[in-house]
Amino acid sequence: MLSFIVQNGKLQRQEKIVPTLKPGWALARVRLAGICNTDIEILRGYHDFHGTPGHEFVGEVVECADRTWIGGRVVGEINIACKGLGRQATCGTCRRGNPTHCEHRRVLGIIAHNGAFAEYLTLPVCNLHKVPDEVSDERAVFTEPLAAACEILEQVDVSEHEAVAVLGDGKLAQLIARVLRAAGPRVTMFGKHADKLALARKAGIATIKVTREGRGALKAKKRWTMAVEATGSPEGLQQALAMLAPRGTLVLKSTFHGAAQVETWPIVVKEINVIGSRCGPFRPALAMLRSGKVDPRALISRTFPLGEAAAAIRYAQEPGVLKVLLKP
Amino acid sequence: MLSFIVQNGKLQRQEKIVPTLKPGWALARVRLAGICNTDIEILRGYHDFHGTPGHEFVGEVVECADRTWIGGRVVGEINIACKGLGRQATCGTCRRGNPTHCEHRRVLGIIAHNGAFAEYLTLPVCNLHKVPDEVSDERAVFTEPLAAACEILEQVDVSEHEAVAVLGDGKLAQLIARVLRAAGPRVTMFGKHADKLALARKAGIATIKVTREGRGALKAKKRWTMAVEATGSPEGLQQALAMLAPRGTLVLKSTFHGAAQVETWPIVVKEINVIGSRCGPFRPALAMLRSGKVDPRALISRTFPLGEAAAAIRYAQEPGVLKVLLKP
Repeated sequence: MLSFIVQNGKLQRQEKIVPTLKPGWALARVRLAGICNTDIEILRGYHDFHGTPGHEFVGEVVECADRTWIGGRVVGEINIACKGLGRQATCGTCRRGNPTHCEHRRVLGIIAHNGAFAEYLTLPVCNLHKVPDEVSDERAVFTEPLAAACEILEQVDVSEHEAVAVLGDGKLAQLIARVLRAAGPRVTMFGKHADKLALARKAGIATIKVTREGRGALKAKKRWTMAVEATGSPEGLQQALAMLAPRGTLVLKSTFHGAAQVETWPIVVKEINVIGSRCGPFRPALAMLRSGKVDPRALISRTFPLGEAAAAIRYAQEPGVLKVLLKP
Repeated sequence: MLSFIVQNGKLQRQEKIVPTLKPGWALARVRLAGICNTDIEILRGYHDFHGTPGHEFVGEVVECADRTWIGGRVVGEINIACKGLGRQATCGTCRRGNPTHCEHRRVLGIIAHNGAFAEYLTLPVCNLHKVPDEVSDERAVFTEPLAAACEILEQVDVSEHEAVAVLGDGKLAQLIARVLRAAGPRVTMFGKHADKLALARKAGIATIKVTREGRGALKAKKRWTMAVEATGSPEGLQQALAMLAPRGTLVLKSTFHGAAQVETWPIVVKEINVIGSRCGPFRPALAMLRSGKVDPRALISRTFPLGEAAAAIRYAQEPGVLKVLLKP
């Protein structure tokens, strides 16, 4: 099968044999895969991963011991935990009900398991979710990042906040803003890119353009009770801390490589609650796609054939580009 | 009256007239004042404060319109909010029930109001708490930092944690460890100073010595569900993040000046909850002193006459020194 692997900071084409199945696993043909900023970080050395990246996908089950899955369209949770790995003794983290943080976890396209930039991938059946017929492939491929946005609703009671600031106007920030808006609060997006902010406005999200130096956000005099940092850059945290009211809530979504200069005293002096937020629940994400509460299709910048994955990931890094898809 | 002010990074003796009273305020004669690390930060320019520092004290009311206070021993909350300032229109933060974060606040010995390194100080009556007879001056002078430690109990349900790590072995860390231990969980203190760790052990706190490079804490294989960062140094945050289990809780107490290199991705990847924690409630602190659940007297390194405040604050910065008191 056609697949791509990480080699010398680039995606390199590689013919592989179709993977064989472990008990309790399924083989899925990838129908559509999405490129995430994490994939770009992986090219830069994040997690020192040298397999096939790609963790956003919609696929079709082609092989599975439980034949009820075969032919079904599926999306898949990316963290392969003790249960999926078939470990007899589950780890403490899984026992405490946090399988997405499993000590032994492999992560689709990120840690020790090949991902979706290929014709086929494997996942434990317990990681799969059937895609409702009403949800097209172009929508379903957003389930994973949308679930990551939904994680915020699991962590914070957003009904306590009249208004929320979202810092960043990229792919994930756009989904987060839509999810929060669907959940109730007024949402204002702070971004640097006029075109991306315009896209958010079309979805009913207020926007404020931040100047190149990133000080625009600070000029906003309002003191926010909740902010979500999804800029993907080190400056976002500092800006968010400056914007928040005392005892405000800051959800951190950006995972960039390396250390940044941070003044931590505002966290203490203002008694800010900083909540790290990563992967989220697929069910509410699929429900939002099905109900049409969130329609992510406007975020698709371009779809490349899988064979052009190397060009696609270069394109994904160009200014103004949002979601880039790969079609095997 | 004798007082000290901040001048060129030092405490400078200054004779002042005894301050006059605004309605609703009280004049207290300082019986004992404590030196806090924040006072040392103030000498270094923190808050650009040039008045009289000192926010830890026990005093005796000598002048007050409400004569029931006169002659009483008191401690005082340090944040002077809208109510105490006599503002007709209270700010949004006070209205939301967060007077310690009041937008207009002055802070005893820190922001726009002279503090306790003097013979007399003034505070609004609403900031005062009577000291129970059973609580000696040497205990009562710890009320403010002990309240800051008690703030953690307001923010985190520590009963959910079997064990808590306290990073740091200084004055505040020592009080925090004692408060947490009194609240239930097993407490382990990670510190660099054998003598300070020995003091903690006498109070029933487990200790682990951290090597000079600060890597000792990381060697501890246990993954903590809760940690309190009270090292007063930028490295503490990074160490705490490395020690925490996924979805762990990190209480930040250190307020040092300036920015530090921080890798924030562990907050996101492990979905850590970072809670900034500053001033706390006086009532539970006084109750702990009264009941003897916490006896802070072992933390007193030395008591200086007020006239030697400049020497005292130099002494407070010497290695191995914990709480230094000033007696007018």
